Amino acid sequence: MATELTRDKAFFAFSPDVAPVIRVQQGEEIVIQTHDCFSGQLKTSADTLETLDWSITNPATGPIFIEGTKPGDVLRVDLLEVKATGPSVMVTVPGVGGMGEMITEMETTILTHTEDTVIFKDLIEVKQKPMLGVIGVAPAEGEIPNSTPGGHGGNMDCTLVTTGASLYFTVVAEAAKIGCGDMHAAMGDGEVVICGAETPGVARLTTQVVQIPGLPTPFIENDEVVAVISSAETVDEAYKDALARMLGFLSDIAGLPLNDAAMLMSLVGNLKFCQIVDPLMTVRFEFPKDVLAKYGYSLPR
Amino acid sequence: MATELTRDKAFFAFSPDVAPVIRVQQGEEIVIQTHDCFSGQLKTSADTLETLDWSITNPATGPIFIEGTKPGDVLRVDLLEVKATGPSVMVTVPGVGGMGEMITEMETTILTHTEDTVIFKDLIEVKQKPMLGVIGVAPAEGEIPNSTPGGHGGNMDCTLVTTGASLYFTVVAEAAKIGCGDMHAAMGDGEVVICGAETPGVARLTTQVVQIPGLPTPFIENDEVVAVISSAETVDEAYKDALARMLGFLSDIAGLPLNDAAMLMSLVGNLKFCQIVDPLMTVRFEFPKDVLAKYGYSLPR
Repeated sequence: MATELTRDKAFFAFSPDVAPVIRVQQGEEIVIQTHDCFSGQLKTSADTLETLDWSITNPATGPIFIEGTKPGDVLRVDLLEVKATGPSVMVTVPGVGGMGEMITEMETTILTHTEDTVIFKDLIEVKQKPMLGVIGVAPAEGEIPNSTPGGHGGNMDCTLVTTGASLYFTVVAEAAKIGCGDMHAAMGDGEVVICGAETPGVARLTTQVVQIPGLPTPFIENDEVVAVISSAETVDEAYKDALARMLGFLSDIAGLPLNDAAMLMSLVGNLKFCQIVDPLMTVRFEFPKDVLAKYGYSLPR
Repeated sequence: MATELTRDKAFFAFSPDVAPVIRVQQGEEIVIQTHDCFSGQLKTSADTLETLDWSITNPATGPIFIEGTKPGDVLRVDLLEVKATGPSVMVTVPGVGGMGEMITEMETTILTHTEDTVIFKDLIEVKQKPMLGVIGVAPAEGEIPNSTPGGHGGNMDCTLVTTGASLYFTVVAEAAKIGCGDMHAAMGDGEVVICGAETPGVARLTTQVVQIPGLPTPFIENDEVVAVISSAETVDEAYKDALARMLGFLSDIAGLPLNDAAMLMSLVGNLKFCQIVDPLMTVRFEFPKDVLAKYGYSLPR
C-alpha cells in the first residue's frame, strides 16, 4: 500500500527549516502529485505571466522525512514512474530565456495531451517523455529557492530524470527532506526558451540509503548510463566540474585506471546540456554502464 | 569516375593563399584520403607526443578548388561516405584537455579496428561512427590553423559530420578552397580528453552551390535534424550564438512564427556540445526536420 502525497502539500525553497509533510520508511513507495511550475495558474492562452501570482510559482511537493537517514548518507531515489497528467503549458517572455532579446511578444500556449504525446498548436505532436525538473534534498542550512539547481539537486531540468532512473543525493539535513515538482511532459536539452511542456503529474518513487562513499552527487543512472550533474554560474564552470567529478568517480570508485577512464570519457562518454535558463546553468556527463561492467564495476543495489 | 585526392596533399591552415591541389566541378564526386591528426606519427604505444613533429599535426587534405563558386555563395557539401581505415590512436597528455590537471602520465594507445568497431585495450569494443573533425572553406584573408574552429568550419569536431550528412558553408575566398581531415572512428560529444579514436580514412563527397540566402553557416543536416554550429572563446558565448542563429533560421528562412520557433526549440530542439578542447569551444543546436515539414519548409535540394 503506497503512501500518497497530494499536490497541495507544496513548498517553495529547499531548507532544513521547512517542516516535513509526511514521514516514510526507506523502501516505502510514495505516490507524489505535482503541480506544474505555475501552480496551475495558466489555464488558457489568455492567462499570461502579467497576471501571475509569482509567490506560488516553482512549487515542489514535500518535503518528505525519510526515516533512518542521517547527514553523510548517500540516498538513492528510484523513480518507478513519472507520469504527466496534463494539460501542458508553454510560454514566451520578452527578455527571458536563452533567446530573450529576440522575443518581442509574451504568449501562453496550452498543449493538449493524448495517452503518450503532447500536441503543440494542433500541428506538432511530440512523444511524451515526462521528467521532473525539480527534485532534491534540503541543504544543511539556509534555503535554496526551487528555481535554483545545485549540489542538493533542485531545478536541474535534466531530461534523464524520468521513469526508470535512479537519482543519488548526499543527505546533509536531518531526514533528507526530499521533494519534487516542475514536471515536463517533454523537453529538449537546454530548455532554451525557459520552459518545457509544463504539466501537472504524478511521480511514484522509493528511497534507500546506499553505501557508496564519495559518490559525486547529484548522480543519476538509468539502464544505459551513469551521469554526474553539475551546476554553476556559467556553463564553462559547470562542465569543468562535471568532467572532474566523473573522472574522479571512474578512477576512485569504479576502479578504472586513470588514463583509461579519461580516454574512455572522450571515446564513449557524452558531455550534455541540461538547462541554460535557471539562476545557475546545469550540465551532465554521461558514461555507459556496459563499459563499467567490462571493468567489473556496477553500482551496489 | 570519381576524382581522387591522396593524403600527401595536406595543408595546415585554411587560407586563400594556399594553392589548390585540384580543381573540380560542382556535382563531381571527390574521393579524399585523410591522415589522422598526427599525420600517422604515432604507430605504437611507445610513440608519445614527446617525440612528435608538431609542424605536421592537424593536416587536412586539399584545398580543393570548386569551379563556379564565388564569395557569398552557400556551398553544400554532401558526405556520401566517411570511412575510417584505421588503426586509431588515442592519447593522454598531462595539463591538456578538459581534465588535464588530473592527468599525470602521458600515454599513447593504439586501437585496432574490425569492420564496424574499434577496440580499446582488448577490452572495450565500440561501434564505429566515423566523422571528420576538420572540414571547412578558406577564410577571406589571413590564415586559420586547422586546430581552430570558426565561421569557416575548421576543427568543429561535430559528431554529426558523418556519412549521409550535408554541410553548408558560406564561400568567402575564391573557389571555396575546401579541405577536410582529422577523422575519428568514434568519439563522444565533448572530445573531453583532447582526442577521439584518431584514424586515417577516406571521405567521398560532392559539392553544390545552393540558393539559401542568409543561411547561418556552418550549418548541417542529416535525415533527422538540421543544426547550426557555433564556436567561441567560451561555451557560454558559443551557445548564445547558436540559439540566436537557429531562431533566426527558423523564423526568417523556414518561416515559422517567431514564438512558435522559440517554444519548439525548447520543446523538441537540443543544445549539444561538440568539443571543449580546441582553441575555441564548439556547440551545436539541433532541430527536427519533421517539425519543419509540418510548417511546410524543407531545405532546397
